[in-house]
Amino acid sequence: MEVLIIGAGDMSRGIGLRLVRGGHQVRIADRDPDQAADLAEDLGDSASGEGLDSAAGAEVVILAMPYEGNKEIAGLWADQLKGKIVVDICNPVDYDTLDGLVTPPGKSAADEIAEAAPGAKVVKAFNTTFSSRLANTGRLDVFIAGDDADARKQIASLCTDADLRPIDVGGRKHALALEAFQLLHMKVQGEIEGNWSTALTFAP
Amino acid sequence: MEVLIIGAGDMSRGIGLRLVRGGHQVRIADRDPDQAADLAEDLGDSASGEGLDSAAGAEVVILAMPYEGNKEIAGLWADQLKGKIVVDICNPVDYDTLDGLVTPPGKSAADEIAEAAPGAKVVKAFNTTFSSRLANTGRLDVFIAGDDADARKQIASLCTDADLRPIDVGGRKHALALEAFQLLHMKVQGEIEGNWSTALTFAP
Repeated sequence: MEVLIIGAGDMSRGIGLRLVRGGHQVRIADRDPDQAADLAEDLGDSASGEGLDSAAGAEVVILAMPYEGNKEIAGLWADQLKGKIVVDICNPVDYDTLDGLVTPPGKSAADEIAEAAPGAKVVKAFNTTFSSRLANTGRLDVFIAGDDADARKQIASLCTDADLRPIDVGGRKHALALEAFQLLHMKVQGEIEGNWSTALTFAP
Repeated sequence: MEVLIIGAGDMSRGIGLRLVRGGHQVRIADRDPDQAADLAEDLGDSASGEGLDSAAGAEVVILAMPYEGNKEIAGLWADQLKGKIVVDICNPVDYDTLDGLVTPPGKSAADEIAEAAPGAKVVKAFNTTFSSRLANTGRLDVFIAGDDADARKQIASLCTDADLRPIDVGGRKHALALEAFQLLHMKVQGEIEGNWSTALTFAP
């Protein structure tokens, strides 16, 4: 599959590594094309870098920027995202307090993305996996929410290829639970000495 | 510590076993005093059974009934719960669909309990641990939310005694995230072949 990842940060690196290992074509797009190219080079031959030019050709677009950036690009690219699977991975966390979300009450970042890009098949995924764990080997749970069942299935299939365990939790209304719980996961890192490398999981 | 557990079901058994092993005095109270006595006998010498008579003497009261039952007893016992630590363990899940909560939007069951029993130090805990895991040995994460910091600390201390890892997530406003995420944990049991014995955890 051809996957376009927007943003060239740590999460893009982690997801990109997994997808490349899983046999997929990865395009990294960033405001800074050089940074995108650098990351793509690290990812390997089946990855390429580019500027924030176009989503054309990509079967899946992963918005891997912070909340505000994801919302902005969803709005700017609304036309070309129509009909595409758009994965929102962000956590709309209030980083001043690490004790709340910055989204309006009852709404998830995924809801906001879906509003900004009507007609896109918005899927929430990868918001509970820390980049350090993605960049390493080892199976991880990836929670998937979205209103388009086929889109959820396709992201689940990407996850399986990438040695991740997809957990399909259903409609987009559940994205808020994923975001609110991940806030807690982040908040307690000091308390549990997690070092930002713990994995949220349903353990056997 | 003297802990009064309301309800004589599987969760009461699991929590009771842990607390008895941890060296605490456990009172089981149920509408059916015989059922309470039977469970207490299973738990051991430091446990006793009684009817739904009174919370007097208990330092901690654990409401271990389903949502409606917890809300009802919180209201009926509002006067005697004043100033006490009251632990709400329930999941206000819509069991017809397993796809939503029955609480009003934006409110947790813990919020409702706190409204029903003003002045009680309401703590959300034990709602993400399946009874089967509590009844076995092995460390488990217990997520704790509540507005009274000292009450959270005391429940955390009980958990540590009971070979559980307390994770203090802060104020009661976070109880909704615990309930909404546990709904997902329940919902996907079939998908992940969890057999109602998986553990929600932040794994190292």
